[in-house]
Amino acid sequence: MSINEQIHQRFGIPTETGRTVPPNKTLSDILGRRSCRSYRPDPIPEDLLQTLFATAFSAPSKSDLQQACVIRIEDKVKQRRIAALSPHPTWVADAPVFLVWCGDSRRIRRLAEWKEHSFANDHLDAFMNAAVDAGIALQTFIVAAESVGLGCCPVSQIRDHINALSAELELPQWVFPVAGLCVGWPAEQGAISLRLPLEVTVHVDHYDDTELLEQVADYDHRREAIERTPPEKQRMVEQFGTTEEYGWSENRTRQYAIPARADFGHYIINQGFKLR
Amino acid sequence: MSINEQIHQRFGIPTETGRTVPPNKTLSDILGRRSCRSYRPDPIPEDLLQTLFATAFSAPSKSDLQQACVIRIEDKVKQRRIAALSPHPTWVADAPVFLVWCGDSRRIRRLAEWKEHSFANDHLDAFMNAAVDAGIALQTFIVAAESVGLGCCPVSQIRDHINALSAELELPQWVFPVAGLCVGWPAEQGAISLRLPLEVTVHVDHYDDTELLEQVADYDHRREAIERTPPEKQRMVEQFGTTEEYGWSENRTRQYAIPARADFGHYIINQGFKLR
Repeated sequence: MSINEQIHQRFGIPTETGRTVPPNKTLSDILGRRSCRSYRPDPIPEDLLQTLFATAFSAPSKSDLQQACVIRIEDKVKQRRIAALSPHPTWVADAPVFLVWCGDSRRIRRLAEWKEHSFANDHLDAFMNAAVDAGIALQTFIVAAESVGLGCCPVSQIRDHINALSAELELPQWVFPVAGLCVGWPAEQGAISLRLPLEVTVHVDHYDDTELLEQVADYDHRREAIERTPPEKQRMVEQFGTTEEYGWSENRTRQYAIPARADFGHYIINQGFKLR
Repeated sequence: MSINEQIHQRFGIPTETGRTVPPNKTLSDILGRRSCRSYRPDPIPEDLLQTLFATAFSAPSKSDLQQACVIRIEDKVKQRRIAALSPHPTWVADAPVFLVWCGDSRRIRRLAEWKEHSFANDHLDAFMNAAVDAGIALQTFIVAAESVGLGCCPVSQIRDHINALSAELELPQWVFPVAGLCVGWPAEQGAISLRLPLEVTVHVDHYDDTELLEQVADYDHRREAIERTPPEKQRMVEQFGTTEEYGWSENRTRQYAIPARADFGHYIINQGFKLR
């Protein structure tokens, strides 16, 4: 499939974009990526896994501070306990490799004490920079792993029981989980997740969302045309009923109508962060 | 250079890792990446740029919520004003393409109102998820751009004057900048940034930083052996003096001994976020 055809597939809209771009495996892998939740039992060679870690931590990091780390869960009993904290116990428990990517603001604070400098940046910026560094390393790992044919699925819902997760990982002050990641050789191909059109996500010179509702209504229709959500697959029908007009926006706003992870801020403060 | 030699170069330590991994351009590009701050004036073809945006927004996003957006600065006068907000006015102003990647929690909140669902997740998790989605999209853009030979440099310091930046971008409630990105055809090759050893960043089953100070002392020496920091290049000598024992940890702890972006939390609260 050409780059142009892949962009058409990813956004669900015929497009001229990508027609002049020569074949490129990196672009093609990312444009065609899909989350994979079902893995063959074959192990991932240790040398390959270490290479993927080396690649992930080659990513840029804010001010070269390298405020990310990863916990690799080798203890399968622990992996099952962590999996049980999320609504997806089976495939998280069964992933051949399971990782938890964390923001790490601890290292720079310990080094400041060692070098006898005050740490004068104990505010929201420190928390955000560590979280973003972790997201960047996570995504770099995913791109690297998918480039060799592995399948990945990030799982943020392991944070649903944040204190239990943090205790399993023995996270000390100033370290916090951002997302889990399941990795393995794909047993089945997942689905391409259709993306919002670039008119919604790319702005020129200033932010402008005046056309948002029309754009999202069209997007909802494109997604439903590919994979319709029948009444029995709609979210929380006991609370919201069923509708013919279901779509991505209805699905996601139903999801966010229910509180989740309301204890996350409290946990982050307990981990030592100041959030002002 | 083989994958194994690239890992040696990136971490500055002879290693067996990567010896069994076949050549792979994606891994090789990322392992060899370097920030680029000097660009040829040649334009980036519009079709290529749109392809890179399409690739960036193909990245995974938390719960498929797609809480990132980017502002592309086409107005060169505006780009110079934004550049002037950072300590690097020249190369930020001169970048052929300049982007600002933002966390966007506004879209889901507007959609909730449209779909007549309450938004029951107005807490720290919503802020972090949007910031991480922006970081993931930013890094995916960088990987994509570097795969076609472009040079990139992320710039978080455009947030040093957050209210002025936000006004330039006309960011409404629940949208906030995470980082700028300069992009162009490289005029010179930057330097490889040596990384902390994986013993520091990859933990097994639980977090463990008992050996941190010894590991960082060795890392400091490896970096200084490649590019020594003479007294005249040391940071804030009027405050901290010069030292023979300068290194990454001394440099970065000096940087964080000075408050920066202490107004960021206040700005984020003004943008409508609850941070508990």
